Amino acid sequence: MSKDNIRVLALGGAGSIGRNMWVLEYGNEIIIFDCGIMFPEADMFGVDLVLPDINYLRDKTDRIKAILLTHGHEDHIGAVPHLISDLGFPPLYGTGLTLGIVKGKLKEHHLLDKASLVTISDHETFQVGSSTVEAFPIAHSIPDAVGFGVTTPVGLVIYLTDWKFDHTPVDGVPTDIAKLAEFGERKPLLLITDCVRVETPGHTPSETTVGEAFDSIFAVAPGRIIMATFASNVGRVQQAIESAEAYDRKVVLVGRSMENISRIALDLGWLRAQERTLIRVHEMGQYPDDQIAIVCTGSQGEPMAVLSRLANRDHTHIKIKSGDTVVVSATPIPGNEISVSRVINNLFRLGADVIYGGRAGVHVSGHAAQEELKMLLALLRPQFVVPFHGEYRHQILYRKLALGVGGFFTPEQILLPEDGSVMEFRPGYGRIVDKTPVGYIYVDGTSVGDVNKVVVRDRQMLSKDGILMVVASIERATGQLVAGPDVVSRGFAYMRQNSDLLEATREVIRDSLTQRNGSQTQTDSAFVNRKIKEVVSDFLYQKTRRRPMVLPLVMEV
Amino acid sequence: MSKDNIRVLALGGAGSIGRNMWVLEYGNEIIIFDCGIMFPEADMFGVDLVLPDINYLRDKTDRIKAILLTHGHEDHIGAVPHLISDLGFPPLYGTGLTLGIVKGKLKEHHLLDKASLVTISDHETFQVGSSTVEAFPIAHSIPDAVGFGVTTPVGLVIYLTDWKFDHTPVDGVPTDIAKLAEFGERKPLLLITDCVRVETPGHTPSETTVGEAFDSIFAVAPGRIIMATFASNVGRVQQAIESAEAYDRKVVLVGRSMENISRIALDLGWLRAQERTLIRVHEMGQYPDDQIAIVCTGSQGEPMAVLSRLANRDHTHIKIKSGDTVVVSATPIPGNEISVSRVINNLFRLGADVIYGGRAGVHVSGHAAQEELKMLLALLRPQFVVPFHGEYRHQILYRKLALGVGGFFTPEQILLPEDGSVMEFRPGYGRIVDKTPVGYIYVDGTSVGDVNKVVVRDRQMLSKDGILMVVASIERATGQLVAGPDVVSRGFAYMRQNSDLLEATREVIRDSLTQRNGSQTQTDSAFVNRKIKEVVSDFLYQKTRRRPMVLPLVMEV
Repeated sequence: MSKDNIRVLALGGAGSIGRNMWVLEYGNEIIIFDCGIMFPEADMFGVDLVLPDINYLRDKTDRIKAILLTHGHEDHIGAVPHLISDLGFPPLYGTGLTLGIVKGKLKEHHLLDKASLVTISDHETFQVGSSTVEAFPIAHSIPDAVGFGVTTPVGLVIYLTDWKFDHTPVDGVPTDIAKLAEFGERKPLLLITDCVRVETPGHTPSETTVGEAFDSIFAVAPGRIIMATFASNVGRVQQAIESAEAYDRKVVLVGRSMENISRIALDLGWLRAQERTLIRVHEMGQYPDDQIAIVCTGSQGEPMAVLSRLANRDHTHIKIKSGDTVVVSATPIPGNEISVSRVINNLFRLGADVIYGGRAGVHVSGHAAQEELKMLLALLRPQFVVPFHGEYRHQILYRKLALGVGGFFTPEQILLPEDGSVMEFRPGYGRIVDKTPVGYIYVDGTSVGDVNKVVVRDRQMLSKDGILMVVASIERATGQLVAGPDVVSRGFAYMRQNSDLLEATREVIRDSLTQRNGSQTQTDSAFVNRKIKEVVSDFLYQKTRRRPMVLPLVMEV
Repeated sequence: MSKDNIRVLALGGAGSIGRNMWVLEYGNEIIIFDCGIMFPEADMFGVDLVLPDINYLRDKTDRIKAILLTHGHEDHIGAVPHLISDLGFPPLYGTGLTLGIVKGKLKEHHLLDKASLVTISDHETFQVGSSTVEAFPIAHSIPDAVGFGVTTPVGLVIYLTDWKFDHTPVDGVPTDIAKLAEFGERKPLLLITDCVRVETPGHTPSETTVGEAFDSIFAVAPGRIIMATFASNVGRVQQAIESAEAYDRKVVLVGRSMENISRIALDLGWLRAQERTLIRVHEMGQYPDDQIAIVCTGSQGEPMAVLSRLANRDHTHIKIKSGDTVVVSATPIPGNEISVSRVINNLFRLGADVIYGGRAGVHVSGHAAQEELKMLLALLRPQFVVPFHGEYRHQILYRKLALGVGGFFTPEQILLPEDGSVMEFRPGYGRIVDKTPVGYIYVDGTSVGDVNKVVVRDRQMLSKDGILMVVASIERATGQLVAGPDVVSRGFAYMRQNSDLLEATREVIRDSLTQRNGSQTQTDSAFVNRKIKEVVSDFLYQKTRRRPMVLPLVMEV
């Protein structure tokens, strides 16, 4: 690659463009920003996780100089244990909390020995190949988050995602505005930044406003308080602890990821509690209900997380009862609305009072709203901007917003890539120059990649009208039917009530096989299969207006 | 049934309790309120419509004196053509527009001759058996909507759903507050009312505020305007027509239901347009783009509706292009967020400007918010209230809200039924006394009821991990394997890349069949099937942590 340009591309996002992994190339040097997982979209049936597609990097792993991790959320670090080996174990740079969480994952996958981790401070400056990297602190919904300024020989690239201008963050570390202003003085070539909240006017409220809402709940709740949030939202957990301490409650942390991340955050000092505030589940019995606060996972209605289990009376140690106050300290991620809604209904049914929704003040976003996005552009005035971590409509609205900021920008300066768009930049030049095929890698159960888009498409078809299998045995020599046809269906029609339809289907198959035998004496099971599929599909559509998957299985005996 | 009480129950709602159909019984007389369809929930795979379960009424059809229809929305009238025959064709009472829409449906189902329709005015008083029914006009998102006051020998029952206090409705007919005050004077026994918007503080804005937003869009749009809304929202269509007329645009109505309902509304005078405002699709070419407004269906991202087709470049006559302004004049119904979002992204991709979302002012709800719900209670002061058309959490919040209204109510006066809860009322007495089983009737394709919960559960299983079929032929006499085992899967794993796994699965089956033959010489295909299912399921779970449906098909030859 020419050394006049840098090349930039997004590898993965699943509906939220570029959300999970970025590649920055200069000459023979590659820097990767983040390495996260995506959560499957609603029609990716049965898929547990989606990984970025690293195909573009497969023949270039020797050039990868570093993976720079911004913060400890799954969509930014979750793919590390799945992909680090295929990427050739390049060094992972991240702050203490971020790498603390990564370490736990690598350990689980027995990869900790092979990985090379470089802990940086939130103001660290370090060299990666011919580029100088400057980390700077940002406020988000997890502590110890950073952005990166990368001074390449071609120009300064700023990668800044999942941030807001919180001037009163819970951890006391706001987004470093002075650093951003300094970057601005250096005339950055490129800003790569998140635009997911561009639809929201104004300014995202500070995380500490949630603490005020917690206080007013903790002040009056008659029994236990059960607060569900993201395990990684350490600031939220911190505020629950502080409200509990203010109102004389003990705090129980429940849920695997809640316990894991809180332990790491406590060790590193990002989470603070007075001695004896935190107790174990089995110690709850020693305190009256109005001295208990349970902080747990499950705010997204995830079926296996604590809050869903509580709502389904499926938790071993904790049963919801009248007098409990449940606080859902999160808003549903798009696609989760229905499952969250079911959990809330069930909690009410079990007698709890449930506090939820934006108006209750128990959640704020970790992302910048319109005025913050504008402020960033005014501070940095980069030559080019790549808005990402949003859908296409967010990118379009971001471009509109940028065009309104003090006349700095022309439409050509705001590039709107898709996953796989290859962009090249040099001073005065920024373009999408190519598109590399970027798909998804599905993780289902323990296997990575053997569930692909063909399999998912089959699941979509199966979910719609089910499947109908036709089994028959024919004599190899004569093509004569010796057993069957049997017809079995799942997800198509209730078989006990549809014996007529099934018998008619068998009849249609028998007819078609007889016709075949008339014109053709040689057996040809591929032909027979195709023929059965065709006549059965047509027949069933005509009778029911449904199109089940038809699968003929003809055996030769 | 005793003549001291009335009995009330909800037959259907699918997640939104009682939304679609209510039964009021006095002695041997039954009055039905509404007869609507539900839209399937996200996990009711492949189901097109859900009908209320009328099992409770099957042996009582001779007692049904009337079906009183409140308004022309699908969730209140859509089940009429599917159920009217099973209900024994009782007379259908409704206003002109409501019955106009019902007539179209009955005609399509070739039932118009058999049905008995009684058109009422929005202030009609009429006798049904021993009860007097008083209709009264209400403001909602479709014109000619009414509520009903039913004076039974036991007391006055008010059925009031899908309403708001719009003092400046587009059709000039507000909710009749004087009538409600008069009902209040008569000390109503029971109010059955919708609570779906109880989470929203304040007062729902008037429908006419949308016209103001339309005007400001129509004033500046550089090219065509394409406005999507519910076909039944005649007031919305009316306002688009008025804005078009104010800014010299022709209006094209596109989409089957949009054309149908608009034609009925035009005939009845609920929709008004100047001569030559409305043009046909094929006439659009005669006008410049900035003189065109297209009003169409598809605001919920429904795949076959006009807006989705436009977003997918799948409409024969209309292609989206740069300069088009698309207005999505609706908010996504819960569960439709993702599909609406995809449509918006694609419209932006095709170059359109898209105006959407609550903040743009292009949609308001047709349902009452908190202050209106309180106002209604203050006006009516009924002895008992049954809040419905919401999830359980809405009912709970409604009860909280009611308890705050001037000290009129105790918790016992606000009954929270589920679908199938049987309630009895008389002056001073109101209770849930019983529960009748109420399920769902699924409509899939042309068939009603043969897709039941077993079939839907199979579809859910199939969508998760797919299916794996095992086919084998054994000799009837000896139990000897003569062909197979063959293994075929769909939606489980990509077979071309998993020949090892499939071969190993075949091996496991062969082993298990051999073992069987050792201990047992007689063939028993049920036993063989069960055995195969068990060993294959265990084997695959152990290898992949996935649980496909395993379907053994053993043929005896």
